[in-house]
Order: sequence, then C-alpha cells, then structure tokens
Amino acid sequence: MEVRSVRDLIRFSDEKMQKLPLFESPKYFCDLYCLKTGQDQRIHSHNESDKIYFVLRGKGLFHIAGEDRELTEGEAVIARPGQDHGVKNASNQDLVLLVFMTPRP
Amino acid sequence: MEVRSVRDLIRFSDEKMQKLPLFESPKYFCDLYCLKTGQDQRIHSHNESDKIYFVLRGKGLFHIAGEDRELTEGEAVIARPGQDHGVKNASNQDLVLLVFMTPRP
Repeated sequence: MEVRSVRDLIRFSDEKMQKLPLFESPKYFCDLYCLKTGQDQRIHSHNESDKIYFVLRGKGLFHIAGEDRELTEGEAVIARPGQDHGVKNASNQDLVLLVFMTPRP
Repeated sequence: MEVRSVRDLIRFSDEKMQKLPLFESPKYFCDLYCLKTGQDQRIHSHNESDKIYFVLRGKGLFHIAGEDRELTEGEAVIARPGQDHGVKNASNQDLVLLVFMTPRP
C-alpha cells in the first residue's frame, strides 16, 4: 500500500520553502509545501493547470488573481488556469500546505 | 477568491457517508468525505483514475488492492487505476477525509 505520512515527510530549510512529493502521475502532482516564517512561493501562473492549496498547519497569506487573504488550518483555496497565485508565511509559526496540481505544467 | 473551509462544510448523517465537494473541474474532483462510526465507502475500482485519500481527522480502515491498513490523521494513501479500494470507519470517533480524484470517472 502506497502510504505517506506528513509526520515522516515534513522538513523545513532555512534556505527556502521545501516542496516534498507525496504522489504523482503523468497527470498531476500532490505535494507538501513546508514554509518557515518569511518564506514564500513567488507569484506565478500556469495557463492550463488548477492548483489547490489546503492548509494543514499554521497560517498562509495567499495571493490569488489579485486578491490577498490569510487562510488557516482547515481552509483551502484554488488557483484556476491563468490566475496569478502565490503564498507567503507572514506568521511567526511554521506553515504546512497540501497541494494538488493538475495537469502537470 | 474561491475559499473552502472544512469547518463550514463538514457534515455527518446517520444514513450514510457524506461526500461534500470542495473544488472540481472537468478533469478532477476534490471532496471531503465524512464518515460516522461504522460507515464506509464500499470497495470498488476505476479503470482510469487515481484516487488520493488524506486523513484530516480520526482513523480510517483502508482497503487498497487486497491490503487492509488503518491510517490516522496526517496519513495519505493512493489507489492507482484499476486497484480495488474502499474505506471504513471502524473506530469510535468521526472520520474526515480529503479526497482527490483524477481524471473524473
């Protein structure tokens, strides 16, 4: 059985946000993002792909299509194809996100 | 911004497992499954689709491709195309799963 545990995979780096693969196929990625205070995923966009962020731990300041909003544990947001999106850990605690993206860019 | 909150969406029924849509497109589903004690998603399979289960709350007894295993909060498992899969809440507490499936069957 292909089991993944956040507890085993979670990893932070002083250098930059950590992107840890959970599952993938030619059609999608499913990753964990681990962000220390101040770290971010810069704003960017994908012409074809949807990206779903789910906050597992902490608080993330999300930017989607020109709008900024802080989301916390148990909240999710989507960037649809062509929408600018990014996330920053502007809090003083660690941030862990579950991220689904399909199709792969 | 298309935000969804587990807190707002979560819902249990005495009748059967509740499947609550978070996000979707023609390519995928992203749902919450809410199972009370004793409820299950019967074992089935999809020829083309991957299904990822992520345990948000509680404990689930998963069956994937002939193997049974209990997974708990923070653990995830995948059923690849053609693999029999199902899940049962065999515990005495509520079970909440985040489920991602692509492509749509």
